[in-house]
Parts: sequence; structure tokens; C-alpha cells
Amino acid sequence: MSSNTFGKLLSVTTFGESHGPAIGCVVDGCPPGLALAPEEFRDDLERRATGRSRWTSQRREADDIEILSGVYQGRTTGTPIALLIRNTDQRSKDYGDLQGTFRPGHADYTYWQKYGIRDPRGGGRSSARETTMRVAAAVIAKKWLAERHGVRVRGHLAQIGDVVPRAFDWDAVERNPFFWPDAAMVEELEAYVNALRKSGDSVGARVTVVADGVPPGWGEPIYGKLDGELAAALMSINAVKGVEIGAGFAAVAQRGSEHRDEITPQGFLSNHAGGILGGISTGQAVVASIALKPTSSILVPGRSVNLAGEPVEVVTKGRHDPCVGIRATPIAEAMVALVLMDQALRHRAQCGDVGDVAPRVPGQAG
Amino acid sequence: MSSNTFGKLLSVTTFGESHGPAIGCVVDGCPPGLALAPEEFRDDLERRATGRSRWTSQRREADDIEILSGVYQGRTTGTPIALLIRNTDQRSKDYGDLQGTFRPGHADYTYWQKYGIRDPRGGGRSSARETTMRVAAAVIAKKWLAERHGVRVRGHLAQIGDVVPRAFDWDAVERNPFFWPDAAMVEELEAYVNALRKSGDSVGARVTVVADGVPPGWGEPIYGKLDGELAAALMSINAVKGVEIGAGFAAVAQRGSEHRDEITPQGFLSNHAGGILGGISTGQAVVASIALKPTSSILVPGRSVNLAGEPVEVVTKGRHDPCVGIRATPIAEAMVALVLMDQALRHRAQCGDVGDVAPRVPGQAG
Amino acid sequence: MSSNTFGKLLSVTTFGESHGPAIGCVVDGCPPGLALAPEEFRDDLERRATGRSRWTSQRREADDIEILSGVYQGRTTGTPIALLIRNTDQRSKDYGDLQGTFRPGHADYTYWQKYGIRDPRGGGRSSARETTMRVAAAVIAKKWLAERHGVRVRGHLAQIGDVVPRAFDWDAVERNPFFWPDAAMVEELEAYVNALRKSGDSVGARVTVVADGVPPGWGEPIYGKLDGELAAALMSINAVKGVEIGAGFAAVAQRGSEHRDEITPQGFLSNHAGGILGGISTGQAVVASIALKPTSSILVPGRSVNLAGEPVEVVTKGRHDPCVGIRATPIAEAMVALVLMDQALRHRAQCGDVGDVAPRVPGQAG
Amino acid sequence: MSSNTFGKLLSVTTFGESHGPAIGCVVDGCPPGLALAPEEFRDDLERRATGRSRWTSQRREADDIEILSGVYQGRTTGTPIALLIRNTDQRSKDYGDLQGTFRPGHADYTYWQKYGIRDPRGGGRSSARETTMRVAAAVIAKKWLAERHGVRVRGHLAQIGDVVPRAFDWDAVERNPFFWPDAAMVEELEAYVNALRKSGDSVGARVTVVADGVPPGWGEPIYGKLDGELAAALMSINAVKGVEIGAGFAAVAQRGSEHRDEITPQGFLSNHAGGILGGISTGQAVVASIALKPTSSILVPGRSVNLAGEPVEVVTKGRHDPCVGIRATPIAEAMVALVLMDQALRHRAQCGDVGDVAPRVPGQAG
Repeated sequence: MSSNTFGKLLSVTTFGESHGPAIGCVVDGCPPGLALAPEEFRDDLERRATGRSRWTSQRREADDIEILSGVYQGRTTGTPIALLIRNTDQRSKDYGDLQGTFRPGHADYTYWQKYGIRDPRGGGRSSARETTMRVAAAVIAKKWLAERHGVRVRGHLAQIGDVVPRAFDWDAVERNPFFWPDAAMVEELEAYVNALRKSGDSVGARVTVVADGVPPGWGEPIYGKLDGELAAALMSINAVKGVEIGAGFAAVAQRGSEHRDEITPQGFLSNHAGGILGGISTGQAVVASIALKPTSSILVPGRSVNLAGEPVEVVTKGRHDPCVGIRATPIAEAMVALVLMDQALRHRAQCGDVGDVAPRVPGQAG
Repeated sequence: MSSNTFGKLLSVTTFGESHGPAIGCVVDGCPPGLALAPEEFRDDLERRATGRSRWTSQRREADDIEILSGVYQGRTTGTPIALLIRNTDQRSKDYGDLQGTFRPGHADYTYWQKYGIRDPRGGGRSSARETTMRVAAAVIAKKWLAERHGVRVRGHLAQIGDVVPRAFDWDAVERNPFFWPDAAMVEELEAYVNALRKSGDSVGARVTVVADGVPPGWGEPIYGKLDGELAAALMSINAVKGVEIGAGFAAVAQRGSEHRDEITPQGFLSNHAGGILGGISTGQAVVASIALKPTSSILVPGRSVNLAGEPVEVVTKGRHDPCVGIRATPIAEAMVALVLMDQALRHRAQCGDVGDVAPRVPGQAG
Repeated sequence: MSSNTFGKLLSVTTFGESHGPAIGCVVDGCPPGLALAPEEFRDDLERRATGRSRWTSQRREADDIEILSGVYQGRTTGTPIALLIRNTDQRSKDYGDLQGTFRPGHADYTYWQKYGIRDPRGGGRSSARETTMRVAAAVIAKKWLAERHGVRVRGHLAQIGDVVPRAFDWDAVERNPFFWPDAAMVEELEAYVNALRKSGDSVGARVTVVADGVPPGWGEPIYGKLDGELAAALMSINAVKGVEIGAGFAAVAQRGSEHRDEITPQGFLSNHAGGILGGISTGQAVVASIALKPTSSILVPGRSVNLAGEPVEVVTKGRHDPCVGIRATPIAEAMVALVLMDQALRHRAQCGDVGDVAPRVPGQAG
Repeated sequence: MSSNTFGKLLSVTTFGESHGPAIGCVVDGCPPGLALAPEEFRDDLERRATGRSRWTSQRREADDIEILSGVYQGRTTGTPIALLIRNTDQRSKDYGDLQGTFRPGHADYTYWQKYGIRDPRGGGRSSARETTMRVAAAVIAKKWLAERHGVRVRGHLAQIGDVVPRAFDWDAVERNPFFWPDAAMVEELEAYVNALRKSGDSVGARVTVVADGVPPGWGEPIYGKLDGELAAALMSINAVKGVEIGAGFAAVAQRGSEHRDEITPQGFLSNHAGGILGGISTGQAVVASIALKPTSSILVPGRSVNLAGEPVEVVTKGRHDPCVGIRATPIAEAMVALVLMDQALRHRAQCGDVGDVAPRVPGQAG
């Protein structure tokens, strides 16, 4: 399978470079009959957008999406849905002097090593611009999951540098530009990021995504596990260096008597498992977290080499993101939603439609 | 693709239940001409074996492997290599009373939810017994990687509960039953695990795998990234709840000026990236770590329900592993080796044989 | 995906060489709960068996199948089903002198060209022995298709050399060793094949498979078309050189007014389409035919070269099949059944369970 | 894998409906460094174009292709190449009255059965318009095959109705609108097709594709055989009902002593195998033929039903193709080229680069 495609039954193929003519994707395998209009993509694309606020890179793209196929009279037909966004803001001159230089911490060096050729304009294919199409594709997945199964996928920033929330409120998350769950801390965060921007440096971040309403039974052992596929999908996001399910690395220091989620007739008593056991959903919330590295595009000069092998000093000009993690929340949600919908279809294939099966509740027939 | 298969060009399909007649695997896509004998599997299977020492579960399997196909006169022929191990130690009576009970923290509940039927003997398909075949398959991958590319894949225990090594020496790792890199701490560890065993409880662990000699250029953007596939492969190991590449979650609190690995004509100055940028290997060591949860099969009673929905108390009888992470090192190595070999073949497909390409060293022709 | 695996959701991986220790397969993706016992494989394996009668090669294999995994208490569990048959009749001495010679019309030459190494014993991996496992895997598919959808897959010999049936009766097919649908011609066929055997030569054959009861809607446009996948599956059978759906090559000389199958409220008026339009089943019988070449293992001497590049004369010793097509019927049925079950699961994934959907009959609600 | 994607390493995903905003494709896995310009697509798109001559349907599309990604400074970069063609000729009013009617011999009925919804404009996704993108994608494959391996893929019409060529000359093929290899018959053909058009009826056709220069060793046993994948790819073309490799169905009546291609130190003495043995190329020309049915869109009225289940009479208005096979040659070439390039990359992955391997000629070192 193409390495620019993911998903087994709901598959998404993305294409396009940061400063090429367009970016786009093909979403294949979507069930027929789902209502879908271009307007429905706006919200999540805006949430992800570069330039959403002064806290992230100032580049602004209109990001008007065009549905090229797969929808007839406002409904999906079961054929591939192609989505296209023209790149309108292609200031490639900003990047001209990077053609012969490898920026530390970027894919410049590895693309060149792999292919012997690379598109240096804005990072080319390795730019986070590509994630726009993941968010677009996931609009379809989120809608289907919600309509068909009542699943809601949402995320929040869980840490930035060494700052963590002191309170948690889902309602706060969408009311500040940081997707931060503690409304009282927003001013503090603004000051933090402002200082960071002035210093010309950057920090990492942690984002957590929670999917409520996932029924038990999704996920395929052994190499198609729900957590395995979430790990691959989330790790494929630019700048991600770590993935956790449920307790994650905190489980290392836990005791078994603490970690295992006990079960009562009323349900589970905790959720250290993050809603997944043996690679299959338990019926609890699916919880995944990611670590995003601090971006390397900073104003602090760094050592590197050029194509001639000579030492050079690299300083990012133009846009500068003090924390790429700030806009990663919608992207992480997107990957979780796409994995869940794919697994939902796969589960239906092997085990029958959820609606068909008598509810499997211990103590009840079925 | 089957969910019991992984790898795109070097693909491994495993089958078998813990207490069924046999476990096995089919390794397909291996280049022809590799020397391969049954004896070569012994070392790694022994390293992984249940019952390696008193520190892990006392079950002992002979684990004599049979090569059923794909090898002629001691060399691989390019056709599928099937490996088989008969299960000789099938004391399923130990598990008889678990048929109607869901053990907390196990896949019992989710397999039943997914399939409406499950093999309760020793965890059936969800048992770590399955990982034996991953280790076996990876013997082939390790050998090919070493012979063809000089790649060496090795791992060690990096944390158990809250205990971390105070020194690091690769030579120490294979000389103690914990794969612990600090020889001076082995007695301390023994006491720690003994105490744990007596308490009837368990702890989690952290394992790190390092692959040296990986050339730059392996890995396929965007959804076939080397780190993405490592994440999926490692997360698919039983009990794993988190995966890190390089600095991993430590990157959250790092500054960009610290995290980015600067480049000089003599090479990279650090390796926070864990040898991967943009999903492609940099030529530095590839470094991945995993978090393993504490096993739920403990002597401390826990609450659960039975098939009738009634509350029950679950206590593990028979074998008890105070830390499953102790024997996870060879399994984690196996998954890294299999991913690397698959990516090596994929790179060769698209970009030509490594031997063909003039060395891509900045400042040199090519 | 491995090239020894086929099927997207119901996937079959086969392994093994003609004269190696064993042949086997792994069937993954089967829905849970299907009753399955080793005895159920006997009939179709016998129908396929070499040595079924004096009309085919006299080699005899017991072909006792062992179910290694995926079945618990007589029912499938949803995990991979591994099937194994030990090779008991390995008279490789018959083939010893072929090691350095390329038999015309065989895969000897191409395997050597591709891999630089080959297992010459009985054709190794390229032997029709491999098809045993396709027939075994399809026992599962045939059963599921019959139980779940009332689909029946059956085939017959439709031509041998230039002999064609003069009458057609399904009941006759299983009552003669040729799978011939015209009982009155069986003696004639016996004489024909006897004469052929005495001449030391061979002829080709045509086999037709018909699947009744296939509901409309199975098949995935564009590159997962039902007819496209049937073509690949049938062409993968040893000695097959052509595949037809419905009218097949006869459509070349047809007029559109004759070929198109008109529709009335009572149904289609003909079935030149072979039950497939646009890659999707119409609800009529699915009809596919294959052309099998005359085997090249004949007693008539033929020119070839050896490894040294010298001209040699090749004569087959030992077993000699005057028409390999005689035993191809169960293999062709197997491939059709496996493709149909895979497509049934894929259809269920995207479009919901058949039981869910109101019947789509023109003129009725739904 | 998405059913609108094909190819394992060189993968092509197509999207778009006949009368939607656009059609397009994503070609992934192409080696980097291949020169590629928009002009290079023109020839083959023109050869395929509807409206090429008065002998085929008069619809005309400009079919100006846009390269959206994957090419930088005129060379492929190794990232996905997206190609887009806007639909400019969308006279969907022609099709308005077909919305409630199922045309006999079309996919109307089966799409509706499968999805419960369909785009009726010009056949929607099932239109042969989709094949435009296959031809476009194959421009890349043909170029790479020619440059890298000296492979040439070309086809010709081999039969129309019951008319067959009386002479054969490759040079004639591109000099007449029928791709007919016998220049002396072109007037006769014109008369034949004219008469057919006046009658309002249609006929079938046979197209043959020949690939010269394919090295031995391409193709993957067992389920990734070169002939198996050619069969799937060719059968996926609209209106195809049969596929043959080499002698094809003629092999049924052949004797083994006639069919087998004998080998001498100077090479093969015949090519009944069509260049493939055991699923692997022999080094001879790869030869495949297809049967195309007569189109059902004819002026002769036919019986069908409407959505209400009532009997209706269907007559095609507007465009009418007396023989869709006339423009199938470039499409068949395209599918053969795409399969060959994919197999070439797969062979390189497992067995090393062709340039690496000492030539495997019997009697020579290697």
C-alpha cells in the first residue's frame, strides 16, 4: 500500500507540497448516504489553521475546500471523495536560501538522503501543511462516528513546556486559542508564549485526545490492534516523538494492583488502560496522548552544513512558531477519528453490524 | 491485509493460541540466498523464554522450532518461510475456572465483547506466548540486517518500577537475567523482584532498543514513516502502553535550541531525534523506548464480574510474573528489527540498492 | 502485502513446497462462531487429490489435515485458523536429475532467473501441490457462504482438448472422475484420455464455475471489482492461461442488442454478463471459466538447456498427467468461493449487514 | 487497501465521476529523479480520447492535465504525484431521464443495489471516463520502464466483431484510428463500422498488448503472479469480459508437445506462454489479450425496469459508440505498463537491483 495512504477500509490518501499548486486527499470506503457539504469542513480547518491567532505562525491560508467527487446531491455515494485546497500563499522566496542548507531538526537532510532530490519550498512534502488534509478527511469520520455510533472525539493541550493545567474543564478548551482546559490560566499562558516568542526559542507540548462513546469490541488483534494503529497514526504527525495510551509511561512505576481496572456490575472502576485491552476497545473512553517536540525553526542560530559539506549557521527567518503543539489538537483528534472509523468498519465486516448483535452485557442474554 | 500479518515487503503472519496444538508464523518476502539453520533461532528464543530464570514465570517450553518451508539446502529460496513450535506444556486445567470470569486488566473481556466467543486457556490468542514467533521471525531479520547492512539491534531494561540504572554498559546487559545495563545493581534488583513476588503484586517496566548502523534514508513519508511503524509494532507487544522515539516525552519540556540536533561536517552533535527526522532515518542510532504496564495476573485479589454479570473476586493461581517487562527486551528488539528490514527492502524498491548509490555525504559527489 | 497471501478481509496465506516437510495455510478474518471440524475438509481434498483415479497422476497423499489454531470447542473464534498437512510421499529421487535442467513449460527457469536458487524437488513451491491448501481454505468459505447467504459454488469440466459436452446435467458432474456434465460421454472420455496417456502427450482443458445465490451488490469498483478479483484468483492457479466472465471471448463477435441482458419485472432475460456488471454482482449466477494449458510434463522428449547452457533433451519420468485440467475443478471452485466470501465481508463493512438492509427490489420500498 | 487504488509499490488511486467537477489520480511510489512535464501526457490522452475520430463517441474533452504535486523543477521527487483534469463537457441533461431507469448491460442497477444511491450523470463513477486517469498514470510507468529497462508496451486491435486482420504490421497500428495492424483493411473497417453505426447496434472487440524487453524474473508467486495481476488489471477495464495470456483459450485444444515452448542455447523456440511461466516473466515478450463486450448504449430499444419496478423501454440518446473496443488499446497498454512497473519495483526490493546482478544466462557465471 502506498505510504501516503492510511486506513484499511476507510482509507485516506494525501498529496501535495507546502508551496506547490495544491494539497488534497482522497477518502475511500466511506459508507454511502452520509450528508456532506463543503461548509462542514470549515470549523475544523479553522481550528487547525496556521495563523489562527498570534500565538502560532502568522501564515494565513483561506483553505477553501472543494469536493471533487464522491458526493451527489449532498450525500456520499460510496465512491472516493476527493478534496482539494489550492495553495494561495506561496512565498517561496522566504525559503530560497535554504535550498543548499540542511536545517537542524528538520526533514531536509533525510529527504535529501533518501531521494537525492527535495522540494525545499516551505519544507515541501514534509511540511505540516499536509496535516490540513488529515483534518479535512476526519471531518467525514467524526460525522459518521457521531451519527452512527454516538462517538465524540475531542482533544486538548495537556502541557506546554513545563506548564500543566491546574484544573480541567472541557468547556474551557474551545474558548481559548491554546485548547487549554483551565480557563483561569489563559493569561498566564499568553505571557509564557509571548516571552518564548521574544526569546526566539520554542518549547514542546503534550496533547491528549479522548474518544467517548466507543463501543466495546473495536480493534483487531494482533497487528491491527486499536492502540497499535493509534500509535502509528499519532506518531505520523509532524514533530511527535511519543505516544501513550491511558496511563502510558506512568504505568512503569505503577503496581499491578493499582493499574488494573477492576470491574463491577456497574462498570469499570478506573481507566488506566485508556479504554483498550488486548488491542480491543473496552467500552470506556479511549484516551491517547502525544509528545510534540519543540520546533527547530527558531531565531536562535544553530550549526549545520550545506550541500558542499561546509559548516553554516542557520537562523529561521519569516514565520516562527514558539510551540507547534498549540495547533496540534485538531490534528491529533483527526487521526484518532480516522483510526476509529476504520476499525468500526473492520469490526462490522468480521463480526456483523453493531445493530445486529444482541447487547453483550454480562448477565444478559447474548 | 490480515490483522495477524504485519510488514509490507517482509511480512510476518503469526498464528496459534497459548494452549492450542502449536504456534507458528510465515515470513514472506525474505531475499533469497540467506543461510538459515534451525539452531540459529535458539539463542533469541531462550532469551525470551518463559522460565528463563526464577525471576519470570516458571513455565518452561522446549520451543524447538521446525522450519517447514522456504529453505533449501540451508539457504532461503525467496518463498515463504514457515516456522512451527509445538505447545508441549498445556496445563489448561489451571485456567478452567476462568472460563466464566473476566480477569481485570486482561483481554478476556474485550475478546468476548468482540467475538462473542473466546479460548480461555492461558489467554488463548491474547497470550504473550504469541510473541515467541515474533522473536523467531526477527532472527531472520537481524541476520539479514547484520550481513547486508551491518545493522545491530539490541535492547535493555531501562527502568523497573521506580528503579533506574545508575551506570550504563552494553556488556553488562546480557550477563544478568534482567537485561540490566548496570552490573553493580543486579543484587539490588534481585532483592527488589523477590520482595515484589512475595507481596503477590507486580510493577511496570521500561525497555529501550537501539539499532546501530542504520543508513540514512530508511522510512517512507507520510504514513509509512519509520517512527510511525516502530510505534505500531512496539505498541502491539502485550502490555505496552507507551512508545517513545529518541527524547520522547522529555521533548515536551525541552527548548528547541536544546532539542534540535545540530550538524557539523563531522556529524550530528546529539541524538534527541532518536535517529529519525521526518519519518526517515538520519544515519544515527535509531532509539525507541516502551512502557510496559504491571501485569494484572497477581496474587492480590481483585474485583470483577462473571458471565452472569455477578460480582466475583479474581486471584491468579499458578504462574505469576512480578514484572513482564523483564522478558520484553528480546521481543522489543524483534519488532524493531522486523520494521527495519521491511523498510530497507522498501527503500531499495523505490530508490535503488544502497550499493548502487554514490554515497550521499554533503560535500562529496553524489 | 505478502505475495503468498490473498484476500483483503478473508485472507489466506499459504506456504510449503511439494517435497518439503509440510504444506499449510493461515486463514484470517473468518467471522467467529462458525462450526468447523477436521472431517469437513475431507471431501474437497479428496475431490482435488492427485491419484483420485487412474486418469490423473498416480501419486497419493493421505492429506490428513490438522487444525492448529483458531477453533475452540468446534467453533471458529475469529483468530487465525492455521491448517497443516504433512508431506508423506516425498520421492525426491525421481527429480534428482532435474536439478541442473530447465523443463520446458515449467517454472524451473523463471524461479532460477528470479531468485538465483530454487528447490527442484517436485517443482518446489511452483508445484500444484500448493493448491491443496486453497481447497482446504475454501472449505471454510464455502460453508460460511452457504450458511450465511445460501450461496452454492460448483464447477465442472467444460472442454478437454477438442471434446465438449453434448448435454448438461449438474447431477452427472460428481458421478464421474472427470467432473463431466454429460453422463453419456464418460466412456468416450475414458477412451480419449487412455489414448492420450499411451501417446505420452497431454491436452488442455476448460473448467467452468457457477456460483448460485450470490446477492446483488458484492464487488468493489474500480480496482476491487468482483470480476477483476476472480480473474486474478483464477489466473493464479497453475497452468491457467485465460479467464472469462459470462460470455467471455464470445462477446467479441456478439452484437450489443444480443449481449445486453434485458430486465423485466420478473428479472433478467439472459446472463451473458455472468452475473457481474460494473464489477458488482447483479443477483444472477456468477459464471467464470478458465483455460488450462496442457501440462509440459510429458513422455514426448523436448529440447531444453541445462545450467551450463548446453542443449539437453528432457523427458518426464515417473508420474504423468495427460490432462491437469481434470482435477482443476475443485481448485477453481475454491478460488471463486474465497473471492466471494472476501467480497461479502467487504460489502458488509461499507454498506452494512445484508440482514439490515431493506430488500432493494425495484418497485418496493427500500 | 482502497478499492480505488491498485498497485503495491507503484500505486495509483483514481477518483472522479464522468460529470462531476473533475477526475484525477495520485501516483505514489515513483522513484525520484524521473523527468516529467505536463506535455508528456498529451499523446496517450489523445490516443484514448473520446472523440478521437468519427468512429467513436463524439464527446470531446480538452483533457488538459495539471500536475499538482510530486514534481519539482521538472523531476519527480519520490512524493505522490497528483494529476487533475477538469471536466468541461458536462451535458448532464442528456442523462436526466435515466435517473429512474436501469439501462440493461450497465452498472446502473448494480451501483443502486450496492449503495442504495448513485450518480446517474453519464454513468457517474462507472463511466469509462475514469480510464483517462489510468492512461495518464501509465505515461509515467511507460517512461520509467523505457528509460530504466528498455521495455516497450504497445497494443493493437486484434478483432472487431468477426473481422480479423489478414496481415500484421506494427507500423500500421498508429496510422489508423482503429489501431488496426493491417493497413490494407482500413477502408473495409470504415465501411463495417459505418454500417454498424447506421444500424444503431454495436459489436465487441479483441485487443492485444505486447511488452517487449521485459527481463526474466518479474512477477511474484503465488498470489502476486505477473499473469494474475495482469488479469485483474485488464479485467478492471470497462466492458472487458475475458483475459488471455499467450495462447490463452487456444491452449485448451493444444497438445503439450505443441504448447510447451522449447529452449535452446539460442533462446525459446516459441512463445505460447506469453512470456510468463509460474507467474514470472521468462524474458520473452509478455503478451496479453482482452475481450471487450459490445456496448449496451445502442439505438436499438431494449427492455428494462424503472425504480418503481415498472417495465420500460430504453433507447440511448446522444452519443453512441458502435464499438468501445476501438479506443481500448491505450487503456489496455496502460494497465500492462502499470503492472509491469509495480512488479519491477517489487523484484528490486526482494532480489536487488537488476544492475547489481550478474546476468543469469545459463552457461555463464552468475
